[in-house]
This record gives sequence, structure tokens and C-alpha cells, in this order.
Amino acid sequence: MAVDVQNTAIILMNPQMGENIGAAARIMKNFSYHDLRVINPKCGWPSEKAEAMSAGAKDVVENARLCNSLEEALEDIDYVFAATVRKRDMIKPAINSTDLSNHYPQDRKVAILFGGERCGLSNSELSIADKIVTIVSNEECSSLNLAQSVAVLCYELQRESVQGIELGDKIDVAPKAEMLGMLKHLEQELDRINFYREHNKRDSMLDNITNMFTRTGWTDQEIRTFRGIIRSLSQY
Amino acid sequence: MAVDVQNTAIILMNPQMGENIGAAARIMKNFSYHDLRVINPKCGWPSEKAEAMSAGAKDVVENARLCNSLEEALEDIDYVFAATVRKRDMIKPAINSTDLSNHYPQDRKVAILFGGERCGLSNSELSIADKIVTIVSNEECSSLNLAQSVAVLCYELQRESVQGIELGDKIDVAPKAEMLGMLKHLEQELDRINFYREHNKRDSMLDNITNMFTRTGWTDQEIRTFRGIIRSLSQY
Repeated sequence: MAVDVQNTAIILMNPQMGENIGAAARIMKNFSYHDLRVINPKCGWPSEKAEAMSAGAKDVVENARLCNSLEEALEDIDYVFAATVRKRDMIKPAINSTDLSNHYPQDRKVAILFGGERCGLSNSELSIADKIVTIVSNEECSSLNLAQSVAVLCYELQRESVQGIELGDKIDVAPKAEMLGMLKHLEQELDRINFYREHNKRDSMLDNITNMFTRTGWTDQEIRTFRGIIRSLSQY
Repeated sequence: MAVDVQNTAIILMNPQMGENIGAAARIMKNFSYHDLRVINPKCGWPSEKAEAMSAGAKDVVENARLCNSLEEALEDIDYVFAATVRKRDMIKPAINSTDLSNHYPQDRKVAILFGGERCGLSNSELSIADKIVTIVSNEECSSLNLAQSVAVLCYELQRESVQGIELGDKIDVAPKAEMLGMLKHLEQELDRINFYREHNKRDSMLDNITNMFTRTGWTDQEIRTFRGIIRSLSQY
């Protein structure tokens, strides 16, 4: 499924704390979202606390659309996910957050709607949404902080697009010959200091040592470092 | 992969703000983690701000282990993921957060280590970790808030365990006969008010109307509501 993160709007309905708006803006920018809409923020607007908390995402706060009503915020939106727990008294399809990408409508302008810190979304606000999306949580402590809910759903939605991303070069494990050379070096030193007190155990102990160092996955440089250690110890 | 969320420790190294410790504790409890360890918090300890921000997870803050060093925090830990961006100058396996469950070691006591707000983890702290885990983010704004990083990784790790969870009963779509009865009712009323001005279009228009209402997926109750609307309108 192609999820258009950059084009997905995040709508905060009646948020109370500027800190949460700022934290939401920051995580949005962390994950390449930029379309923030704020309906009747109780903290006033513009909000110094929102700007301070947004850190490197001040532009998301500054460019946020301030709206007077949900209808105004949804003016250009085709499809709305409401972030809330499943309401048993409302006939509305509800999905687990882990299925969000699978349910993301194609070629539509999508918004995710979050309620305020204290009361969440009212039934009349929810009735406008196309689907409910729920973050499954511990029943003993099920209510997520507003900015944390935004973080989880923004992360989830862009999750598939980053899933294949490799984080850089693999570790450049030294060629086998380097490791075997190092082991030969070690073996000679161990023989020299008469490490194997019981000579009949020498070969099986050497096998164990070989196995132990083979598993390290050391690079050329690390092997050189260890040879330096052997050399220093044996000279000492 | 079996991920033992309840047994996974979250370690915060030199956190500065009590608010972030509290928010981390809250999201931990939201996702059923409880083992929090705090190394040299700059906000002092106990921290009122941490307790206030933890909301329903005050017990996680109160039971947090206060440590003087990373070594102390890792005393009973077998395997450490360090949450940071990939360090190109360090030979350390790095994984994308989306692969966290796949790399979770079985039958080991696991910790996820997070650095402080300002400087993250130092190279010497990182060198103790078994793997680096990175949350892929926007290069223009790559630094996540501490509590948001905790939220994302705690969510990711318990993601698979909640993936199959159904959120409740499916919508109980009415039997076909109810819908057909409603459509018959509507058809009679439309005939009565001479809705189809051009009579030769009546049948194709009725097909369209049938299709339109069939797609609603209405329940018994919703069909009764609509029949009530038809009745009221026609009496009016």
C-alpha cells in the first residue's frame, strides 16, 4: 500500500497544552509529515510553549492551520481516521493501529483526528470519521498522552516505507586468513608459555579457542589490535 | 519471535527533564512494561515532575531503579540495545527499529538504553551495547524527543503481540431481506410522488438507488431509522 505520509494531515481537536502541540509537531517532522491543523487550542494561539517544545520543527507549528471547527479543518479532506478507543455504542468500523497502512485509502486526502487531553473525541465528532483507529494498550493504563498517540500513529503509518532501509555498511569482517594468522600467532605464544599443562588436552583446547575467536567477527583492525595485545603480553 | 515485553528493561542514561521520565513511564505502562532504570537524572530524584507527567503510571516511576552508573543498571542484564543513530565510526551492528522483534534474543534479560536529551549516548556508553537500534527519521529533523523515542520503541517491540487483536464485534449488517424491504418501501414512495419524471428511466434509476443503498452496510436499526425518515417525509 502506498501511504502518502507527506500529504496526511494531523488534526488536534481542542488540545489543552501547548507542550503537546509542540511535541506532536516535532514527531511529525521527524517522520516527514508537515500538515498540522489545530482546532480551538485551549492554550491560546500562537503558543510559546508549542513553539519551544517543537524544537527543530518550529515551521510545522508556525504553518499549522488554526481552525474554529472540525468542519473547517476537514474542508479539503476526503477520509478521516479518528484515534480513539473502540466505542461499543457506535456503529463505526474500528481497526488496530497495526493495520493502519492496509486501510489507508489510495488517492484520497487523509487526516488522522486526535481528541483533547482530557475528554478525547465526543460522539458527534467521532460520527464524522470514516474509521476508528485504536492503539491497543494495557487495560490498567490505557490512556496514552496526546503527543505519544501522535508519535505512535505517525510512526506506524510511515513504518512500511522505511522497513527495507539498511542502516549502513555491514561490518567488514576480516578475511579468514587474517583470523587464522592471528590464531597461529596465539597458538605459538601459548605453546611457548606452556599454557596447556596437560598436553593431551592441547588439541581440543585449541579447537575451543579457534571457535571462540572465529565467532568474534573481528575486522582487520581489530585483529591487528589483538595481535598487538598478544605481542605486548608475551614481551612482558 | 517471542518478545518478553514485561521483562524488558528501559534504561534512561543521564536524563535531564523529569517530564520526559514521567512520559516514558506512562507509555511504558500503556504497553505493559514496568522495569524502568534511571541513571543520574539531572532533575534530581525523586522528581515531582516525573510523577506528575506519569499520570496513571506513578508506580512505574516510584519503582524505578535509581543507578549511579551504567554498570550498575546493567547488573542483571544479558543483552543491550542502544537507541541511537548509527555511528559510522564504530564497529557495532545496527538495526532499523522495524526489525527490533526479529533481533530480540530469546531467554535473555534484555534492556533498551536511551541517552540524555542533550547529548545522547557517548561512544564509551555505546561500546557496551550489543546492538544499535535506530528509528529512521527525516534527515532535516532527525532528533526525536526522548520520551517519543521510548514510545516508538516500546510500541514497536509489543507490536507483533497485539497485531492479531480484533477490536470487537463486526458491524452487524442487516439481513438482505430487511434492506430489500426498505428499498421496496422507498420505491413505492418514489412512485407515489412521481419521482421519475421520465418514466423510461425509472428502472435504471431504481437500479442505481438499489446499488447506492446496498453499499451502506446498514444495520437493522439503521434501516428502521431510514424507513422512519421515508415515512415522515411522505406524510409531510
